[in-house]
Amino acid sequence: MSSSSGQIFRVTTFGESHGPAVGVIVDGCPPRLALDFADIQPDLDRRRPGQSRLVTQRDEADQIEILSGIWEGSTTGAPIAMQVRNSDQRSPAYDHMADLYRPSHADYTYDAKYGVRSIAGGGRASARETIGRVAAGAVARKLLDVAAGVKVLAWVSAIHTIDATGSIDASTVSRDDIEADPTRCPSPEHATSMTTAIEDARRDGDSLGGIVTCVARNVPVGLGAPVIDKLEADLAKAVMSLPASKGFEIGSGFAGTLMTGRQHNDAFIPGPDGRPRTATNYSGGIQGGISNGEDIVIRVAFKPTATISSPQDTVTRDNEPTTLAAKGRHDPCVLPRAAPMVEAVVLLVLADHWLLQQSVDVLPQLP
Amino acid sequence: MSSSSGQIFRVTTFGESHGPAVGVIVDGCPPRLALDFADIQPDLDRRRPGQSRLVTQRDEADQIEILSGIWEGSTTGAPIAMQVRNSDQRSPAYDHMADLYRPSHADYTYDAKYGVRSIAGGGRASARETIGRVAAGAVARKLLDVAAGVKVLAWVSAIHTIDATGSIDASTVSRDDIEADPTRCPSPEHATSMTTAIEDARRDGDSLGGIVTCVARNVPVGLGAPVIDKLEADLAKAVMSLPASKGFEIGSGFAGTLMTGRQHNDAFIPGPDGRPRTATNYSGGIQGGISNGEDIVIRVAFKPTATISSPQDTVTRDNEPTTLAAKGRHDPCVLPRAAPMVEAVVLLVLADHWLLQQSVDVLPQLP
Amino acid sequence: MSSSSGQIFRVTTFGESHGPAVGVIVDGCPPRLALDFADIQPDLDRRRPGQSRLVTQRDEADQIEILSGIWEGSTTGAPIAMQVRNSDQRSPAYDHMADLYRPSHADYTYDAKYGVRSIAGGGRASARETIGRVAAGAVARKLLDVAAGVKVLAWVSAIHTIDATGSIDASTVSRDDIEADPTRCPSPEHATSMTTAIEDARRDGDSLGGIVTCVARNVPVGLGAPVIDKLEADLAKAVMSLPASKGFEIGSGFAGTLMTGRQHNDAFIPGPDGRPRTATNYSGGIQGGISNGEDIVIRVAFKPTATISSPQDTVTRDNEPTTLAAKGRHDPCVLPRAAPMVEAVVLLVLADHWLLQQSVDVLPQLP
Amino acid sequence: MSSSSGQIFRVTTFGESHGPAVGVIVDGCPPRLALDFADIQPDLDRRRPGQSRLVTQRDEADQIEILSGIWEGSTTGAPIAMQVRNSDQRSPAYDHMADLYRPSHADYTYDAKYGVRSIAGGGRASARETIGRVAAGAVARKLLDVAAGVKVLAWVSAIHTIDATGSIDASTVSRDDIEADPTRCPSPEHATSMTTAIEDARRDGDSLGGIVTCVARNVPVGLGAPVIDKLEADLAKAVMSLPASKGFEIGSGFAGTLMTGRQHNDAFIPGPDGRPRTATNYSGGIQGGISNGEDIVIRVAFKPTATISSPQDTVTRDNEPTTLAAKGRHDPCVLPRAAPMVEAVVLLVLADHWLLQQSVDVLPQLP
Repeated sequence: MSSSSGQIFRVTTFGESHGPAVGVIVDGCPPRLALDFADIQPDLDRRRPGQSRLVTQRDEADQIEILSGIWEGSTTGAPIAMQVRNSDQRSPAYDHMADLYRPSHADYTYDAKYGVRSIAGGGRASARETIGRVAAGAVARKLLDVAAGVKVLAWVSAIHTIDATGSIDASTVSRDDIEADPTRCPSPEHATSMTTAIEDARRDGDSLGGIVTCVARNVPVGLGAPVIDKLEADLAKAVMSLPASKGFEIGSGFAGTLMTGRQHNDAFIPGPDGRPRTATNYSGGIQGGISNGEDIVIRVAFKPTATISSPQDTVTRDNEPTTLAAKGRHDPCVLPRAAPMVEAVVLLVLADHWLLQQSVDVLPQLP
Repeated sequence: MSSSSGQIFRVTTFGESHGPAVGVIVDGCPPRLALDFADIQPDLDRRRPGQSRLVTQRDEADQIEILSGIWEGSTTGAPIAMQVRNSDQRSPAYDHMADLYRPSHADYTYDAKYGVRSIAGGGRASARETIGRVAAGAVARKLLDVAAGVKVLAWVSAIHTIDATGSIDASTVSRDDIEADPTRCPSPEHATSMTTAIEDARRDGDSLGGIVTCVARNVPVGLGAPVIDKLEADLAKAVMSLPASKGFEIGSGFAGTLMTGRQHNDAFIPGPDGRPRTATNYSGGIQGGISNGEDIVIRVAFKPTATISSPQDTVTRDNEPTTLAAKGRHDPCVLPRAAPMVEAVVLLVLADHWLLQQSVDVLPQLP
Repeated sequence: MSSSSGQIFRVTTFGESHGPAVGVIVDGCPPRLALDFADIQPDLDRRRPGQSRLVTQRDEADQIEILSGIWEGSTTGAPIAMQVRNSDQRSPAYDHMADLYRPSHADYTYDAKYGVRSIAGGGRASARETIGRVAAGAVARKLLDVAAGVKVLAWVSAIHTIDATGSIDASTVSRDDIEADPTRCPSPEHATSMTTAIEDARRDGDSLGGIVTCVARNVPVGLGAPVIDKLEADLAKAVMSLPASKGFEIGSGFAGTLMTGRQHNDAFIPGPDGRPRTATNYSGGIQGGISNGEDIVIRVAFKPTATISSPQDTVTRDNEPTTLAAKGRHDPCVLPRAAPMVEAVVLLVLADHWLLQQSVDVLPQLP
Repeated sequence: MSSSSGQIFRVTTFGESHGPAVGVIVDGCPPRLALDFADIQPDLDRRRPGQSRLVTQRDEADQIEILSGIWEGSTTGAPIAMQVRNSDQRSPAYDHMADLYRPSHADYTYDAKYGVRSIAGGGRASARETIGRVAAGAVARKLLDVAAGVKVLAWVSAIHTIDATGSIDASTVSRDDIEADPTRCPSPEHATSMTTAIEDARRDGDSLGGIVTCVARNVPVGLGAPVIDKLEADLAKAVMSLPASKGFEIGSGFAGTLMTGRQHNDAFIPGPDGRPRTATNYSGGIQGGISNGEDIVIRVAFKPTATISSPQDTVTRDNEPTTLAAKGRHDPCVLPRAAPMVEAVVLLVLADHWLLQQSVDVLPQLP
């Protein structure tokens, strides 16, 4: 298994939904960053279950404990270990699923790869693992904010067929706009429709997917390490490693293929502060794998939640046909909780590249 | 700059379009693989300029030289270094662009990051860099074929508004189907329309983008290293590090967000060989970050080529407005040459994960 | 800070002597390894303070808690997180040292690098950090034993001028021989002298260093990844990252420079099982960076403990001269506790290379 | 095989003694470093065969060609590829050895690991591989010199029983002192004895080993990344990955074990420039894994060359006893050519840690 990301700002998560705890080590955070519990917990609160009637009703406080790396309110340069105890390690609700493979879950592939049944609640593949990444993302957020003024926001722009993309201005949407509704869709009318759709899906034993949009503002020009560790490449990897993600776009994305070069090219215009700006931003803030100072805008597709309460055809571990009727509490739509996860992994990528960049710009500019 | 990919099958490229040579080191290829020039050159021939009237008319033979790692027709376990001499290092056609930034190219960001003008032809950001990755991909192809029977094919499924997706069966399309037309679109009627569109764009001084679809068949169950190095995450990173890519999808991708869970879940059915199969493949061959034995199907969006011959507004290095009228030969549509690039980076990811998997499955299965 | 080692068997430690806990994440351990608390705790018991009158009298139980990666007595392939709570987080005995630099400690360099005072007990530089590595080493020991029958033993071969090297046969010494005396010197007469020397040093407010020898038996032929990750190179790095180590030798080491090639070359002789053996083992079990199947024998020099209770000249954080008189409990000689630390890091290197080797030997032997 | 070192300043070598070329890619060198052929070639000239009558008489010019990463006399941030063509790819002198294992060479272990006969001249295990590292080291040397004023020098301090250590002041020895004699021993009287000893060994068909000492001066305080990537740990790994090295010491090394803590501790004294200095330097310039601003002093043991012209007992690939009588030209003593190799790998480690340090010291000092 591979549980680490980042070259300088290195993050390693651990823990399963059924074990004693989940957590993370953040190694490589610079020393002398003011940081404490209050910087971390709010991000966890935005991703925890039970936060609204729209998401799974498991009520877990997900209170973070900081075990190392911080001394008298400041990072020390040592690895920052953080963990959350699992209050609810194993639910008998899952026992009936021990010998069959849930469709479109990781049960079969984990079993095939590791030879150990992916147990109650999804084990390592559970979204519970993302607690570690969200906690680490909160550290990255503080670092990027203090050091460079970077701000990262993600929201729900579509759920099923309800697409609010055209009603949301990615360049001005605020945290308050996003948090105004439990859907985390900053377009109020769409949020209302989404709520209805999610409640209908729950009632029907069905589930919905959708799209999260994320913007990073005030990113310094120059982040990214082509040709392999291009900034968009690392962003794509980060979001595609989240549970249930199926697609990634930057800037114009797939829709950009319907434009011609004349339409799509972002003309440079002289910027007021002496650096070039672009008249449009089809590039999505990254050119040649390197940030150009415009807003970085990405979109992530999340499939409809695999856990549904309708009966489904599947097979047992012995390859015999059977029927699954899921019990237990689950999210009929992961999108509202996916937004903070996307923010977290985007923050981790930006923090890593920002630190990496410090080792590039070390010699004087040439004349 | 970061020019390496892979943990076990490690690939490092070098070279700029204006320098003496481009190339690659492949470190970590297992010994005793039968390999020679004839395994490498055909893949390079499919990505080289001048191969058809549809692509750039620079005529470069791109003949590969193998410098190390092979002895009497077999790999030795030592790093395999390969290079291609540049026949045409610097064209005066680019001199007039030395002091301005071409829109939607990497000129500005490279200059901002490295303080060194991204010179004639794009320098390191040039598609010429992908020669190294395609050569390395050919080594990966041979390894995966010999060791596991894996086959990887990519083709052009859309150019601009001409979308052949519905006419191509990803599970049966063949190399011959793809190579039957210079567009590399295996639907003949769409290929004809695409050819006309590309020729029109060239005549108009414009350019077109499109979509490449790639399938990997016969991939062993179990490849992928969640939670960070999920197979789809590494695939996403690999294709998003190619020049001009703007989006990535696996399986149902963005369209999957329009389905409900009941529609989208891939029901398991007993497979004839004792292992579960899926009735549908919305998962795209990967579940929980691990291959499930079904075809892996991805789609990659490529923007319209940034180089166009129409005049464009831009700025100089001194942030003064100016106008660019590109000269020189260029591709009005990169898609036909992008297909072999996508194949190459997909092959690199699969080879790396196949080798990585050898260190996982080392202890006996539990009862 | 960099707290991770290994490419496949990846170990990341966290924790300071003054914080709530120390611990480790082991990522990449193969699934299906029988493993529980009883496999880990004994190694920790051999490195803990207070185990004998020879070592520091701080009495810490150092009881390990396993947080993830193990299910019903078997590894699952998921990261194994383990931690030990610190019972004694901060001793007022260290407060008087907060503003000066202890000679030959890490106080000054940590302060210079991180700008944060390396606090009471040494912080991250404390030997307490090695708890994580020893716990991880115990996992590696189990894996190597079960999968390949490898055995690793380390002992004290010299303390100060008392050198037992000539009285100990590295090829036959046993765990019982080593544990027979608290010094961990398997030569009883030397152990007695060493005990006297350590007690004398403690009484004098002084400290002693010495040499640990470590043997790895039954190592498969073929481990090691030249030219950079040679097996002896990774072993050297591993032991030189332990606190207080100042030198590393393999096989003949520095003494080998006094021999000629004719004396030093290890003649090959036909081995009984069809593979070559060597008549002598000046190579120390590794040739060309790769294990040759003979015993791997290394020696590690540890300096006399920097903490002494005699007064010492030093400077304050403000670069003013002052005098330090250490209080608190300390080890007058770290050697008996260093032996299990050396074993642990050697085990980590061997486990990593054993797993790495699985990805090399994948194609059939050539005729 | 693993052919890369460094995290930021990443170096990957390729090539065998019998192939068309050897070389290196340096990825991660900062842009805007003035660099050309004349910065690289002198270091290669100091390691090449045939430079004096003391070393092997193969006469290879080892002229470096730079393939990428440099534009108009300056690094561009792109990977720097460099190569040397092999003039003398395969000597029939080695043919008689194709089916036996040379004692204390890598023939047997390479064959066991890779299943491919380590061919004429040693293949990848040949010292010829170090050309790439020496060329990369020259880039590191220029970077460290320009950016930080660091100077690295290595010399021969002992050959066989002739030990010049006590006659050489590591803090003042100069390049001219070292290059004054082909032995690279800066003590003239010892150099004379060493020359005689080497010539005697050659005449006897025997070989000699010895010790290289290396000093790094003016290293900034703060380099090193504990607890795993301690500076001395990375130095140890680097030198132990050189052919024929058997031991590593820093500062007091093994001799330090004969001192007590009172003798060994380096008392801090107020330095003239406001930072602490040490009265002695038994620490060897590194404390807690981090440079303290004093000279870094290491010693490396090299075994007597394995190639001797006296007959030796060995076995064939079929494990049958046989006798080897080496022919061909060889070094009776590798030490004079080992000194530039040690310099190179030390430079690579320092450059990498210097760049890594740029990402640590990014936030303001605390009050």
